[in-house]
Amino acid sequence: MARLILKFGGTSVANVVRLEQVARIVKKEIDAGHQVAVVVSAMAGITNELVSFAHALCPSDVTLEHDVVLASGEQVTSGLLALALQRLGLKSRSYLSWQIPILTDASPSQAKILNIATHELETCFKENCIPVVAGFQGVTENRRVTTLGRGGSDATAVALAVALKADCCDIYTDVNGVYTADPRLVFYAQKLETITYAEMFELASQGAKVLQARSVELAMKHKVKLRVLSSFSESEGTTVVEERNKVEGTLISGIAHTQNEAKVTLIDIPDQNGMAAIVGSLFEHQICADMIVQNSLQDGKSNLTFVLQKSDLDRSVPLLEDVKKKIGFTDIIVNKEIAKISVVGIGMRSNLEIVTILFKTLAERGINVQIISTSEIRLSVVIDLKHMSEALETLHTAFNLDEKKV
Amino acid sequence: MARLILKFGGTSVANVVRLEQVARIVKKEIDAGHQVAVVVSAMAGITNELVSFAHALCPSDVTLEHDVVLASGEQVTSGLLALALQRLGLKSRSYLSWQIPILTDASPSQAKILNIATHELETCFKENCIPVVAGFQGVTENRRVTTLGRGGSDATAVALAVALKADCCDIYTDVNGVYTADPRLVFYAQKLETITYAEMFELASQGAKVLQARSVELAMKHKVKLRVLSSFSESEGTTVVEERNKVEGTLISGIAHTQNEAKVTLIDIPDQNGMAAIVGSLFEHQICADMIVQNSLQDGKSNLTFVLQKSDLDRSVPLLEDVKKKIGFTDIIVNKEIAKISVVGIGMRSNLEIVTILFKTLAERGINVQIISTSEIRLSVVIDLKHMSEALETLHTAFNLDEKKV
Repeated sequence: MARLILKFGGTSVANVVRLEQVARIVKKEIDAGHQVAVVVSAMAGITNELVSFAHALCPSDVTLEHDVVLASGEQVTSGLLALALQRLGLKSRSYLSWQIPILTDASPSQAKILNIATHELETCFKENCIPVVAGFQGVTENRRVTTLGRGGSDATAVALAVALKADCCDIYTDVNGVYTADPRLVFYAQKLETITYAEMFELASQGAKVLQARSVELAMKHKVKLRVLSSFSESEGTTVVEERNKVEGTLISGIAHTQNEAKVTLIDIPDQNGMAAIVGSLFEHQICADMIVQNSLQDGKSNLTFVLQKSDLDRSVPLLEDVKKKIGFTDIIVNKEIAKISVVGIGMRSNLEIVTILFKTLAERGINVQIISTSEIRLSVVIDLKHMSEALETLHTAFNLDEKKV
Repeated sequence: MARLILKFGGTSVANVVRLEQVARIVKKEIDAGHQVAVVVSAMAGITNELVSFAHALCPSDVTLEHDVVLASGEQVTSGLLALALQRLGLKSRSYLSWQIPILTDASPSQAKILNIATHELETCFKENCIPVVAGFQGVTENRRVTTLGRGGSDATAVALAVALKADCCDIYTDVNGVYTADPRLVFYAQKLETITYAEMFELASQGAKVLQARSVELAMKHKVKLRVLSSFSESEGTTVVEERNKVEGTLISGIAHTQNEAKVTLIDIPDQNGMAAIVGSLFEHQICADMIVQNSLQDGKSNLTFVLQKSDLDRSVPLLEDVKKKIGFTDIIVNKEIAKISVVGIGMRSNLEIVTILFKTLAERGINVQIISTSEIRLSVVIDLKHMSEALETLHTAFNLDEKKV
C-alpha cells in the first residue's frame, strides 16, 4: 500500500462529466489498495472570472478580500468531487484550508505555506475516508483566508505530500506529461519520460504551464516523487527525478516560452544611484524586474532595460514616473510586443556550444536577440513577439529535440 | 446613531455595477452616522447553478458536501462587496460563517442557527470597520460548513439583528416592498406601507418570495424591526410591524400564490392505521405533506389527498410505493398541474364572509376549488394551474385590494 496525493487541475474538473472521470481515477487507486488524498483546483475558467469581478471593483491594490473571492472556486470543486466519490460508494469528504488547517503568511494572493497540520487528515485516513482538499487556499494565524498565487494548487499538493509523507504526488493535467516544447506551437515536440527537478523548475519558471515553479522547488527540496499525468488518457506521463542519464546528443531538455512580459527601457539615467532607486522602487511594491541590462553611454549617463510581467505594468509606470521626477531621466519606453524563449537542460552546464547554436539559428532566420540572460542550466532570450513560433520551431530542430514522427 | 443590519439579495448583487450601487447605499447609512453590518446573498443565478452541479453528481441524498458547494456563492459576494466598500474609502472586511462563528446544527441544506458569537463583529465595529457577512451559511460544532435553506440569507440577517441588538434590519430586494399580490401577475397590485409579522409570515410561507418565512418568524419572536426596501430605487418600502390599524374595507392584506406543489391522491386505503403509516413515512424523510384531506368511502376504505413540494416528488413516490405494498391501497395519482392561492389578513379572524366571497368569486368564473385549508389569518385553496392568473386577479378585485391607478 502506498500513500498517494492526487492533484487535479482546472480542465480535469471543468464540468460534471470530468469530475465523474476524476472520481473513477481516484477509485482505481483505492481499488489497487492505496491510501489517497486528493487536491483540486477550481473548475477551468472560474478563477479568471472571479479575478475579473474583483479587478473591476478594485483595479489597484490587492487585499485579502481578493483571496476570499478567489478561494471559493476550489471550495466548489472539493465539495463536488466528494459527492462524486460518495456516488461511487466511497467514503469521502471535502477539506477547506481552515478545516485542516493549512497555515500561511498573510500576503494577499501570494501567501506562502508555513505549516500543514496532519491530525484531521490522518483521522480521515484512519476512517477509510478520502479527503478532497481544496487547493490554492490557506488560512492565516488570524483566521483570514489566503490564496497561494497562480498554480497554487500544485503547491498545496506537494506541501501535503511532504506533510503526510506521501510516497508519490501525481499531478493530473490536460496534457500527457512534460513536453520538449508546447505541442500546440511545435509540431515535433515530444513527451519526456523523465526530467530533473532543476530542469522542471527552470521550464516552469520560464512559462511552461504544466507545473507551478514553486511547487517543483518544494518537491526538489523534500525529494517528493512527482509525476505529471493526464486525466484525459491513460498514457505514462512524465516523472520528475533527481538525476537522469544524459542521452547522447541532447544538451537541451526543453524549450519554454512566455509572452506575459513587457520590456521597459529608461533613457539617459544620470548616475549609478539612479539604478538602485529604480529597481528598489519596483521591488518595494513586490514588482520583480528581470533580465536587467545597463548600457553606459559616453556622457556618464546610461540606459536601463528590463523585463516586467505585463500584469504589473499598470502599477509600474506611475512608480517609474515618480522616480523619473526625482532623479531625472528623459524617457520611459514600453514594448509589450516581446516574447521570451528559454532553452533548459542539465546538459548545457558550462557548455558554450549552446549559445553559439542559439545565436546562429536565430540569426539565420533574421531574428534579433534583444536581451539575453543565463542561469546554470538555462539560456533565455527576448525577441520580437511576431517571431515567437518560428524561433521555437527552429530552435527545437537545432537542439535535436524533434520527435521522429512516422 | 442607530445600529443597522442591511441585507442585499441576489439581484441586488448580481454584477459589479449592482455591487457598486449597494456600496453607495451602505455609504449613505454610514455618512448618516449609523453603524452598519451587511449581509449578502450569492449573485443572482449562482446558487441555482451550484445546485444543478451537485444534483447532477448526486441526485438522491443531500449531504453536507452540498452545503460546501452552495456556501461558496455568498463567500464570493462578501469579498466583492468588501472590495467595493474599500474602493469608496470605507474600512470593510468580509466575514464567513466560521470566522464569526455562526453556529448551526448539522442538518444538510436546512441547518438551523443555534448561536451567533458577537465578539468578532463587535471588534470590527469598534475599529469603524464595516463587516460584510456571507449570508445563508453556518458552521457546525465540528467545523463543517452548513447552509440554511432557500432564502437563508434573510435568516442570517434577522439572527444577526437579534445577536447584535440592532435597531433595524433592512432587507433590500429588487421590488419596492411587499405587495398585495405579485405585481407581475396582478396589474392592480399595490405596495403595502405596513404589514404585520403574522401576515408577512403567512404570505411568505405561501409563496410570496420577498422574505423567507423562517426569518419573519424569528423577527416576530424577537420583535426585530424589519423593513423591505429596493436597492434599485429610493422609494419607502414596507415596514413589518406588530399591530396595524385595520383599514376600512380591507379584510385581506395580500394574496400569495405558488405553483411549486403537486397534489397526490392515494385510492382505497383499507384502514385508519394506513394514514399514519403514509404520512409518517414521508415525515421520516423530512418530506412535509400539507393540506391533507381524507374522504371516507362507504366500504370502510378511504382516499387520501395531500399536497407536496414538486421537488420532493421524486423521493416521495418510491416511499409511497413501499407503503402501498405494506398496507395495500390501490393507486397513487399525482397531479402537478395545480396552483395554491392563499388570501391572508388579520382582518379575517373569525370572519366567515371571507370564505363566502372566495367561493362565490371563483364559482362565478367556473374555477373549481380542489382542496381548501385555513389558519387563523389565512385561507388557501388548490385550483387548476391554468386558472391561476385569473383567480389571482378576480380575488384581488373581490377583496378590494385593487390600487386606484389613474
